[in-house]
Amino acid sequence: MTELLSIILAAGEGTRMKSSVPKVLHSVGGLPVVSHVLRTAKAAGSTIAVVVGPNHEAVEQAVTRFEANAHISKQMERKGTAHAVQQARAAFEAAAGHILVLYADTPLVTRETIAEITERLDGGADIVVVGFRPDNPTGYGRLLTEGNRVLAIREHKDATEEERRIGLCNSGILGFRGDTLRSVIDRIDNKNAKGEYYLTDAIELAAGDKKRVDFIEADADELVGVDNRVKLAEAEATFQEFKRIEAMENGVTLRDPKTTWFSWDTEIGRDVTIFPNVVFGPGVKIADNVEIRAFCDIEDAVIGEGATIGPFARIRGGAELGPDVHLGNFVEVKKSKIGAGTKAGHLSYLGDAEIGSKTNIGAGTITCNYDGVNKDKTIIGDNAFIGSNASLVAPVTIGNGAYTASGSVITQDVPDDALAFGRARQETKPGYAPKLRELALAKKAAKLAAKGK
Amino acid sequence: MTELLSIILAAGEGTRMKSSVPKVLHSVGGLPVVSHVLRTAKAAGSTIAVVVGPNHEAVEQAVTRFEANAHISKQMERKGTAHAVQQARAAFEAAAGHILVLYADTPLVTRETIAEITERLDGGADIVVVGFRPDNPTGYGRLLTEGNRVLAIREHKDATEEERRIGLCNSGILGFRGDTLRSVIDRIDNKNAKGEYYLTDAIELAAGDKKRVDFIEADADELVGVDNRVKLAEAEATFQEFKRIEAMENGVTLRDPKTTWFSWDTEIGRDVTIFPNVVFGPGVKIADNVEIRAFCDIEDAVIGEGATIGPFARIRGGAELGPDVHLGNFVEVKKSKIGAGTKAGHLSYLGDAEIGSKTNIGAGTITCNYDGVNKDKTIIGDNAFIGSNASLVAPVTIGNGAYTASGSVITQDVPDDALAFGRARQETKPGYAPKLRELALAKKAAKLAAKGK
Amino acid sequence: MTELLSIILAAGEGTRMKSSVPKVLHSVGGLPVVSHVLRTAKAAGSTIAVVVGPNHEAVEQAVTRFEANAHISKQMERKGTAHAVQQARAAFEAAAGHILVLYADTPLVTRETIAEITERLDGGADIVVVGFRPDNPTGYGRLLTEGNRVLAIREHKDATEEERRIGLCNSGILGFRGDTLRSVIDRIDNKNAKGEYYLTDAIELAAGDKKRVDFIEADADELVGVDNRVKLAEAEATFQEFKRIEAMENGVTLRDPKTTWFSWDTEIGRDVTIFPNVVFGPGVKIADNVEIRAFCDIEDAVIGEGATIGPFARIRGGAELGPDVHLGNFVEVKKSKIGAGTKAGHLSYLGDAEIGSKTNIGAGTITCNYDGVNKDKTIIGDNAFIGSNASLVAPVTIGNGAYTASGSVITQDVPDDALAFGRARQETKPGYAPKLRELALAKKAAKLAAKGK
Repeated sequence: MTELLSIILAAGEGTRMKSSVPKVLHSVGGLPVVSHVLRTAKAAGSTIAVVVGPNHEAVEQAVTRFEANAHISKQMERKGTAHAVQQARAAFEAAAGHILVLYADTPLVTRETIAEITERLDGGADIVVVGFRPDNPTGYGRLLTEGNRVLAIREHKDATEEERRIGLCNSGILGFRGDTLRSVIDRIDNKNAKGEYYLTDAIELAAGDKKRVDFIEADADELVGVDNRVKLAEAEATFQEFKRIEAMENGVTLRDPKTTWFSWDTEIGRDVTIFPNVVFGPGVKIADNVEIRAFCDIEDAVIGEGATIGPFARIRGGAELGPDVHLGNFVEVKKSKIGAGTKAGHLSYLGDAEIGSKTNIGAGTITCNYDGVNKDKTIIGDNAFIGSNASLVAPVTIGNGAYTASGSVITQDVPDDALAFGRARQETKPGYAPKLRELALAKKAAKLAAKGK
Repeated sequence: MTELLSIILAAGEGTRMKSSVPKVLHSVGGLPVVSHVLRTAKAAGSTIAVVVGPNHEAVEQAVTRFEANAHISKQMERKGTAHAVQQARAAFEAAAGHILVLYADTPLVTRETIAEITERLDGGADIVVVGFRPDNPTGYGRLLTEGNRVLAIREHKDATEEERRIGLCNSGILGFRGDTLRSVIDRIDNKNAKGEYYLTDAIELAAGDKKRVDFIEADADELVGVDNRVKLAEAEATFQEFKRIEAMENGVTLRDPKTTWFSWDTEIGRDVTIFPNVVFGPGVKIADNVEIRAFCDIEDAVIGEGATIGPFARIRGGAELGPDVHLGNFVEVKKSKIGAGTKAGHLSYLGDAEIGSKTNIGAGTITCNYDGVNKDKTIIGDNAFIGSNASLVAPVTIGNGAYTASGSVITQDVPDDALAFGRARQETKPGYAPKLRELALAKKAAKLAAKGK
Repeated sequence: MTELLSIILAAGEGTRMKSSVPKVLHSVGGLPVVSHVLRTAKAAGSTIAVVVGPNHEAVEQAVTRFEANAHISKQMERKGTAHAVQQARAAFEAAAGHILVLYADTPLVTRETIAEITERLDGGADIVVVGFRPDNPTGYGRLLTEGNRVLAIREHKDATEEERRIGLCNSGILGFRGDTLRSVIDRIDNKNAKGEYYLTDAIELAAGDKKRVDFIEADADELVGVDNRVKLAEAEATFQEFKRIEAMENGVTLRDPKTTWFSWDTEIGRDVTIFPNVVFGPGVKIADNVEIRAFCDIEDAVIGEGATIGPFARIRGGAELGPDVHLGNFVEVKKSKIGAGTKAGHLSYLGDAEIGSKTNIGAGTITCNYDGVNKDKTIIGDNAFIGSNASLVAPVTIGNGAYTASGSVITQDVPDDALAFGRARQETKPGYAPKLRELALAKKAAKLAAKGK
């Protein structure tokens, strides 16, 4: 395969986002938009060069975190796309194969589109333009074509009435044979209204050199550019639609697909049923035959086969649930391992815990894992029974088959098969409730009187 | 009314579902798709015959559970729809009236459509074909018609350009006069590319016998076939749309209809207001003037007039809420009866309880109803006051007008009007908190030192 | 600016709502539909007259609550729109400027539309008709126009085939020069099929007087009339769409805009991120850089800069959260002030509390604020640490830097830097758990035996 270099332009200001966060660090599917582009380019086997703007340290860091070997350069002044590409000179001068120009704010471009570009370049094209058909082409440059060839790109303002009826528009994404890019990039001038250097001008220059300029057509959905928050929401919606269809085709039932929100890396097995309103943050893997009921929020978690989760469950922080675990409503599991067949049905917080198999966690159980400084562990064995409304004060270990009484505060280890109590004895005062009520009413009267003063 | 037999074909393999569950047992609106068809056929006054596939014991059970008198036969080899109908021979030979052929994976066919078919048969048609107009007719057989009559059904691959422009397609659902079916069913052959016996061929045979073949047209939405999970989601969406419109027309306010999910059997009174994001599982009946706030998950429950529920409430397991009950956020009620005007506003689990009227259940109350083996009852009277964060250890009875102190573990019965405490006395150690903090910091330092070794 | 009087017709019965609540008191975005119209008219600088129906005391109250100076009159019999306007005689006889006729069940008419009407009146028009283009114009009166002028309004039933192809319809909203209205209103007769007095007839009368009748065109979305619950849901959806776009354009990220529900008065800062499924009730103000995770229900609350909320948080009742507060899952805050940087991460109820800054509220903390009659206060200082599963029995004060042990019931004040315990000492009985299990199994066996009798 011919080598491939992707130059990703990430220097845009993004003022229309109205944000203090650089445009390309806003997320889609839980991943910054620039990282989507990096990910797709890498998956296509490409090396990476990124052009960032001034004061874009955060973008640099995000790029480096995702791809340590990325070539990063800065565009100190924003003087157009060709000028941006020039900043990556060290990378494109050294490139042995094809060169792709991508945009960090266009996160949904697919591997299939990149593959089509490289196939055309391999097949003899010198430049490949990616065209698309937006719902409303007004404002876009139109592709004037013949067969697979691009004759010219006509800017909207320069187009005739007839040319404006052309639906096929220029996405800005371009593939170059390396030599072609190098032969034209420094001949692009800035003699236009804005005084900027436009990469699109490469096409006319190459045509003048008798180079072959092809186009391919990509779906408009994958070319959505994240310029403002409305577009960001559109990109998110398209991304989610891709993931939902993919999940259903793999044998996942989504009761209402529009209310399942995936992250870029969510992995879900077969015969999983997902009820309405389930949110997956990053880092989730779910085995086969799991049922996730409504209103669950799950991130950074592994869920074993046959588990039943929710409704109203919250799982996070590197949780690992074994097979057939049941978590019920208003239950949070954070950074805990839970063994096969263990159940925590109601109103519980399990944090920093290791719980064995076939153990029952009563309603209202709280692991008291934090002392203001340290997070300590709660360890519970197999076949244990934690009575309802327990406070388990970590660090503490409760043995296999142990039993803690309802309403107990457990501060000391409980050996295997032991029973532990930690609650006060009940006292009952017959006939006393009406007196309490009188006291409460008197208090209220006194308050009202005090206000009336 | 002429007698009616419905032969429901349920033998399809459903490999495109990618599921270990037979296709027709996947659910729409909380009911298996085959049961939707059974239900509609029964509502139309029909007797039932179902043809299941080999290894479809689960389908048989589902059918029998829904309709004990269904005639069930097996199609051991999948040799086409006519072959499937032949397996129901004992049923159709004995049928005194009309015969309908329905599909177990087409759950949304309506009673109105069935009524139209039988009217046509009563009016003299020998066969009635149900046509529909799919968004994209490619692949479907087209109905060639004149007035109400079907001249022929043309398979897509055999159709001329002009015939392909016909939008009216064959749904596969057919109504027969009993004698007509019996006269053609064994004359259908398998001389076609797949070597299968197609029920559609009955039409040509009947036409050759000078029989009258009519068509009716049904809405494409009600003919969606559940062949894969995307289609399953479409069927669910259509079903929900039907239910939402029906509810609104009956005087229910749905703040955002797309986020109310009904079950097939949900019943809701007038002037009920439903906020966004409410899920109804099977078995819910709601009286008039109820308000259900956002994020509620309710199944198998009866809710009395004037109740206010949620947000974030979970009700299930045969719960019965009286008039004017209030359940607030993060409250679960399971298999409990709650009397008029009683309130449980926050973070409570009420399981296997019987609670009187005008009682106040404090925030954080937990019924400790399970000892690892038995589920025991908590009984609370009228006008009682359960202080916050109580643990009520069942079996236990709390009398009318009784009062339990906040934070108590109640293990013994509390008589009417009595006050019960079950909590430790507070001890306060002045100036001790900074020492605790030092200890915690020292512990952390020790941990870090240990790691650093 | 010319003075403006808005006559708002609110007397419709609304039987198609199937409700015991008057039609115009059903809500959109948390505000009664009549109040939307009042609000828009007031924002346009108009004085207000409202015509209500008999037995519409609740409507009168709602109007007066919103606009104390509104002129209210009653239409005792429903005899048409002109008759309704006549009931506001005292108001329109006294009006110095233009007169607008609006409908209380058309809540989304915009200030921009009203401004366009008054501009036309200022520019010399005697009457201004508001036209719109419904998806399906069948049934609507069509505007026969020439340039900006209305030649006639043709009722659907009287229209020719050609006239029925006109898409521009009469919304019923009209602007009048005061003298024009006064000169025609009493000349409108009821010689029509229904025997009613139609305000639309004013146009023909004015034309006969050689008056100038203009039209403007408004978006169909803003003219939706709330006649039944399906239309109510449509109005709600349109309202939400307006608010969502507005928020995104102001620099708010909505992960899935369709699942953010605003109230009419929601205020949200820049760089706020809202995850799927967040409901805002009335009275919410959110500062910049706040993150609101999925499944939150927030009303009557102020949230400070940098706060992180949810998932599954419930905030209400005049809550005030300072900067950088964190509220986590299954946490409810009611009528409480919470200081900067304080955290309450899990399963807590904080009601009637005042909490300082940098305090940690442990999982499962409950403020026991209610004694059956009074709601008492819980006061917690800065840098305090409330151990998990605490019951704080109000009225109670916990000092700066104080520490309460996990599982404690705190009934007495805790001084600054003190440590408070309120829990029982643990007792452990080795080897006792298997005996408990035997007892539980024996109990079950006895129950089953009793049933079997």
